[in-house]
Formats: sequence, structure tokens, C-alpha cells
Amino acid sequence: MTHKEYLELHHDRFIEELTEFLTFPSISTAPEHSKDVHACGEWLIKHLQGIGIKHAELHETPGHPIVYAEHCEAGPDKPTVLFYGHYDVQPVDPLELWTNPPFTPVFRDGKVFARGATDDKGQVFLHLKALETLLAIDGTLPVNVKILLEGEEEIGSINLPEYIENNKERLACDAVVVSDTPLYGPGLPSLCYGLRGLCYMEIHVQGPNRDLHSGSYGGSITNPANALCEIIAKLKDEHGRITIPGFYDDVIDLSVEERAGYAALPFDSEAFRNGLEVPALCGEVGYTTLEHISGRPTLDVNGLNSGFTGIGAKTVLPAKASAKVSMRLVANQDTDDIAKKFADYVQSIAPNTVKVEVVNLHGANPVLVERTGKGMNAASRALHKAYGVEPYFTREGGSIPVCIIFDQKLNAPTVLMGFGLQDENAHSPDEHFSLENVKLGMEASLYFYQEMSK
Amino acid sequence: MTHKEYLELHHDRFIEELTEFLTFPSISTAPEHSKDVHACGEWLIKHLQGIGIKHAELHETPGHPIVYAEHCEAGPDKPTVLFYGHYDVQPVDPLELWTNPPFTPVFRDGKVFARGATDDKGQVFLHLKALETLLAIDGTLPVNVKILLEGEEEIGSINLPEYIENNKERLACDAVVVSDTPLYGPGLPSLCYGLRGLCYMEIHVQGPNRDLHSGSYGGSITNPANALCEIIAKLKDEHGRITIPGFYDDVIDLSVEERAGYAALPFDSEAFRNGLEVPALCGEVGYTTLEHISGRPTLDVNGLNSGFTGIGAKTVLPAKASAKVSMRLVANQDTDDIAKKFADYVQSIAPNTVKVEVVNLHGANPVLVERTGKGMNAASRALHKAYGVEPYFTREGGSIPVCIIFDQKLNAPTVLMGFGLQDENAHSPDEHFSLENVKLGMEASLYFYQEMSK
Repeated sequence: MTHKEYLELHHDRFIEELTEFLTFPSISTAPEHSKDVHACGEWLIKHLQGIGIKHAELHETPGHPIVYAEHCEAGPDKPTVLFYGHYDVQPVDPLELWTNPPFTPVFRDGKVFARGATDDKGQVFLHLKALETLLAIDGTLPVNVKILLEGEEEIGSINLPEYIENNKERLACDAVVVSDTPLYGPGLPSLCYGLRGLCYMEIHVQGPNRDLHSGSYGGSITNPANALCEIIAKLKDEHGRITIPGFYDDVIDLSVEERAGYAALPFDSEAFRNGLEVPALCGEVGYTTLEHISGRPTLDVNGLNSGFTGIGAKTVLPAKASAKVSMRLVANQDTDDIAKKFADYVQSIAPNTVKVEVVNLHGANPVLVERTGKGMNAASRALHKAYGVEPYFTREGGSIPVCIIFDQKLNAPTVLMGFGLQDENAHSPDEHFSLENVKLGMEASLYFYQEMSK
Repeated sequence: MTHKEYLELHHDRFIEELTEFLTFPSISTAPEHSKDVHACGEWLIKHLQGIGIKHAELHETPGHPIVYAEHCEAGPDKPTVLFYGHYDVQPVDPLELWTNPPFTPVFRDGKVFARGATDDKGQVFLHLKALETLLAIDGTLPVNVKILLEGEEEIGSINLPEYIENNKERLACDAVVVSDTPLYGPGLPSLCYGLRGLCYMEIHVQGPNRDLHSGSYGGSITNPANALCEIIAKLKDEHGRITIPGFYDDVIDLSVEERAGYAALPFDSEAFRNGLEVPALCGEVGYTTLEHISGRPTLDVNGLNSGFTGIGAKTVLPAKASAKVSMRLVANQDTDDIAKKFADYVQSIAPNTVKVEVVNLHGANPVLVERTGKGMNAASRALHKAYGVEPYFTREGGSIPVCIIFDQKLNAPTVLMGFGLQDENAHSPDEHFSLENVKLGMEASLYFYQEMSK
């Protein structure tokens, strides 16, 4: 029997098992579901043992447990793959917007509807079935496989960094594979080779020591809200370029090949604009929209707050004003370096008639991996084989903190081989996962482990 | 007996009457005190009749009643003075910060402590005693006197404009006198000849149709909060001048005499700065601080709101941002004209990649009266006689809506002859009124009516 025949033969059982997996209300943020998260972790251990994975154990943490398993029988000359995923899910509110109960999986229109269907239980499940198939047909796995499934991804992977730090040798690997991102589009697989970093700052402008009557005092002192606006206005020029000195110093320019890759991606900018209902798109001069949202650094105000914000008018000259401003970074910008440059620049342009404080709230460095590394090549061939088309190489505009952790702590590149779709309502009511991608994703995962051995 | 001897002779009784007047908890904003406001109005009617005012009646309104009285026996060749004041008071919270109960007047340190002591019952009372004295000694008043005391000043004079509109002839007068402002300083009487107007606007900037993930979308569209900051930053130049085209067109420049008057005012700008704890004062280049706060127009942000304003970081690209921006106006700026210029300018500088809406929340025109009119001259001589020094002529930075109503509806200039002090806690716990100014205020009021007849 071929691997593909095995997948087809057992398809109905797989769907039953997926249903079982999706039935656990493993909402990591809800204390009342703590037991459910734990039970889901235990189910995974049993499942991993059931499909023939040699070693599987539940590691307790101060929060939810980490599922760790390994099957390293391929020998030292074969590469080691670490498969990472998460079995916890987002809350389900507002419950009334769900067509079916979120933890009673329903199959219709070629999709499975349930919380966690696409993010990330459904995608984790693909790998389990790929590994089961390989073990069932071949009696062994083509590479050494380590499996790390956490129960706290939706609450910021609180205990994962320390776990990885304490288990560096055990987790050592040649590549990490993660299936927790979408395809570029239906039938269009993609591999993400770049993630933006983040530098999230807060500016506090203090004017007078108390809110003042704008009639009695207005005109004599710098209004901190006006000053804040003037500072923010100076952070970008009229070409959409960030004016912080040295901001672009470490940016690796998009190569000719990368820009060609961006240009080859099917993208309807008018549909994109229309979907956001903005009068026109707008970004750094000289770059395309797709480059704007993933290949270039940004600076966005995330929050503004000052004075009276209720309905109506209050003639207050506010004592203070604050803004949250974050920058998305691209390789090789360093979040700490950018934070310092930002703070220095803001202080340099702040009027000396107010007191300005700049706080670094948090950050993450960008990630850029070789598009031609072993893991990427294997994933590329696997996706091609399963989907019948070459995958696109793309960059993501956001950060995926776990990739940065793997990069820093294990020095291993992460292969983001996702099978979701953009509109599958991850984090929203009626989350679902395409059954077509369940099937193709199992195949692609299976091929990936095979290709990694070549 | 002279008028002054009468005032001295009856001083103790006056204090008892003032105590009685201050005992009414006439808090206009509190429905549970509605009866107290009414009772206080009735007390005034009785009191006015008691001192010999010919005609006094309580006018019911949909809210609290208006006390109207008149004593017009001086003949048609004598001027008519309308005395305006209010008998309602502010709420007393936080009650625990009062040293004594707010409606049990206490006399200590040469002051009377009670809610309403300085704002405005105490100051209203001065005029009643001046009129009593004139009637007692002379048997008549030197001018025709009309008295208008409202019970809704602290809640925005809701029913006053309509009352005045409906009683224009009855209220017709040559000058309005109001004692509801502070002296320039202890022992330093002043007469206010200018009030700033107001133009209070709101700017709404709409970006995308929903809050977006700043990683997935950041860089491709105009962030409405950044756009708002850029718009606001363009409303003033680096010299503190407002850049709205035509904004200064109708401003009457401060005359050489006025600027000399400003310069002559005792003012410690370092103490002013220190009291606000700002690193440095700042205002329109070419003008002094006192000119900034009352003689020149301003533009201040009163509120800013966008995106995430809680503690910590949320990587949101906000759908919208809004600001409240108000301008203080000086004669002869017109609030509707300025509102239009503001809206036009904001739209002209707004990027075409967002939608911008500008709303006119409310406004008031500035007031500037002749410093040499009959009322001002009479008040000036009266204050000089009572305090032994010439009063300063000053402008107020805020608006006093009632002055604008009198100006518009009665075409009568208002003489702001106040006897409070800046630090007498109007609107705060431990409100009080200096007994020295009770005494001098009665004299000055008495002289004012006398001087008006000359």
C-alpha cells in the first residue's frame, strides 16, 4: 500500500479523531477551562503513543502543560526536524454569533467548523496523521522527528521560552516546521521566509501639573497634546519615510529577485483597498503595497490619549498627553537599537517647554531565513507535490514570536508551511478549516518529512 | 447720617442676613435641591421688598425661577442700570474636604466660609446692601435700577436667554453691572473690558473600516491617528501663530495703550510658571504672557482619542482617530466665520487617503467694550473711591456667556466689577469670601450707582 492509499483508506477514522481533538474546550486564557487544556494535552500524549511515536510525555509548567515527543530512529546522518504547534485555542465569545456550538464540530460545505479547526488543532493534526502514515507503511520515519506542542500559544507562550532554554540539547534540530499560517490563497501554497520585528514605544508628554481652564491659561504654555501631535508628525516625511536618524541603516534592501517574487504574487490592490474602504492606499514611496505590508519597516500610532474624550465639549487644557507608537522592523534592524534611536530622536525634537518621557514597551527582532535552505527546499518540493504548483515565497508583515525564539535559542530556521486560509475566522465565530486542505495538508506534511531525508 | 455710617452701623445685621442667604443649599444641578433653590429665590423677593425696592417678583421658568425686581424712580433723564447676579451654587462634593459644613457659614480669619460665599451669593448681597443704604439715607435711588438674579447660572443659564429675549423692553438699560469675577489681586480692583470668545471644533479621521492588525496591514494605508497628528501639527507654526488662512483677519490689534496697561499690571511670570510646574512658558512670539492668556487668540487641543489607550501594548492600526480642538477668539473674530475657516483648512490639509469630518461643537463671540463708556467710568471712580487706588483695566481669557447675551439681546455693555479673589475656592471645598471685600464691595457698589447718575 502506498502512503497515499493509506491516507485515503483511513480518512473516515481520521475525521473522527479530528472531531475528538476539536471537542476539547482547551481555552488557555480561561481558568475554568484549565482542566480541559490539560485533558487535551493528555489526549495528545495517548494519540502520539497510539500512532507509534516512541517517546511522548507531558511536561507540566506553571501554566498549561507542554506536550513533548520524539522519534529519533533515523540515525545521526539523517537530519532532525522539530515540529511545533499548539493545542490551546482562543475564547469563543461572542457565542451567539456561532452557527453551531464551537466545541461540537460540524462538517458542511467541505469545511469543518469548530474553535481550533484552523488555529491550530486542525493543522497540528495533519502532521500527526502524516507521521502515523509513515510509521504504518515504512515502520520508521525518514528523519529524526521531535514534536513540541504547547498549550499557551494564545496567551503569549508564557512558559515556552524557559522550557526551550532549559531543554536546548533535547530540542536541538536542523529545522523547525510550523503549520499555523495561511496558504497564499486557495490552491496557492506559500512559504514564508521573512517576518517583521516590532519595536513598541510609548510617549508621555507632561505639560502643566494639572488640567487647566483653556480660557484662563490657553496661549501661555505649550499644550502637551499639541506638542505630542507635532512630535508624531515629525516621525515621517511626506514620502512616507521614517525620519528617525539611522532608522534605515541596517535594513537589508529587497533584492531584485525578491521584488520580482512580490510582483509575481497574485494581488488585487483595488480589491484590497475596497475591502478596507479607504479612499486610496498609501505607503512609502517607491514600493508596492505587498512590499509595504511585509518587506519594509513601518511606523504606526497604535493609540492616542489626552484630555477630554467624552461626548461634547470641555474647555480643558490637558496636563498630559500620551501615544503608543510601534514600528514594524525588517532584517537586520535590531529592536533595542531602534528603540534607542526612537527615544533619542523624540527627545531631540520635543519642545523644551514640556517634559517628555519615552518608554520601550516591548519588541521583537525581525526574521529573514534563506529561501534555499534544506528545510525550505524540502517544504517547497513537498508543497509542489501535494498541490501541483510551486509555492510562492512570501514575507509576513507581523511577528511570530516563536520563530524568533527558535532562531535565538536553537539557532534553527523555521519553515512556515501553513494550510489555513485567510478567511477561516481564526479568533472569530464560526472558525473553520477546509477539508480539501486537510487532505492536501496531510500529504504535504508527509512529503516534507520524506524530502527532508534527501 | 452718611451712607458709610449707615453701612457701619448695620454691619452686624448685614452679616446675619448674609449668613441666612448662604444657608440655602441652592444647588441648581441637584434635583433634590430644587425646593431649596426656589426657597432661596423667594427669600430674595422678600429681602428686596424689605429694603424698599418697589417691585419684585419671582418668574417661574421650566427650571429654576428668575428673581426680577426694579426701582425706576429716578426719572427718564437718569440712566438705567441692570444688576445681574445668580443665587444658585455649585455642588459641594467632595464633602469630606470641607472644614465646616458648606451650608453652615463660619467666620474665621477675616473670611466667611460657605458654598456660594464668593460665587455669587456674597457678591449679590453687596449690591442689595448698597441699594438698601441708598434707599434708607436718600429715600430714593440715584439711577433707575433693574435687578435680575437667576437660579441656573451654574448649569449654563438654560432658561435665561429666552427670558431676556421675551423681556427685552422690560430689561432695557444703559449698562449691566455684574459682580461675579475676582479682583486683580488683594487690594487691587480691576475692570474687565474684554472677554475671549470660543470656537470649539471636533475632527474625526476615518481610516479603514475596522481596526486592523498593525503587522498585517501596517505600511499600506494612512494611519488615521498619524494623519490626525499631522493635521494638528499644521494648525500652528513654529512661532506659535495659527496658520488657518484668514484666522487673524478680524483681530483688533492690541493698542499701544492696552499693551502699556498690560505691562503695568503686577505679574510675576516666574511664579506663574512655577505654579504650573512647566519647564518654560511658551506662547505666540511678540506678546507677553498676560497678553497670551487674554489679549490674543489661541488654538488648543482639548482631547485626543484613538486606538488602544489601556496599559501595555496592542498592535492595532486604528480605524479612526478624533480630536477636540478649540480656539479662544478676540474681538472682532466671529465664531461662525472661524469655524468655517478651520473646517476648510483642515479639509484642505487632510490627506486624500482618509476621510475627515469636522464638526462645530459650539462657540461664543468675543466681547470688547469701551474702557471709557459711562458704566466703565462710573465703576472706575467707584472702585477708586472704595479701594483708594485706580482699578486696572484687564481682559479675561475665558468667555462669560451672559455678557454676550446682554450684548446681543439688550445691546448693553456689561461692567464686570468683581470683588472675589482668585484663590477663594469657587467651585471647590472651603469656598470663602474676604470680609474686607464684603465691606469695600458694599461701598464700591453704592458709589457705582451714585457715579452712574453723574
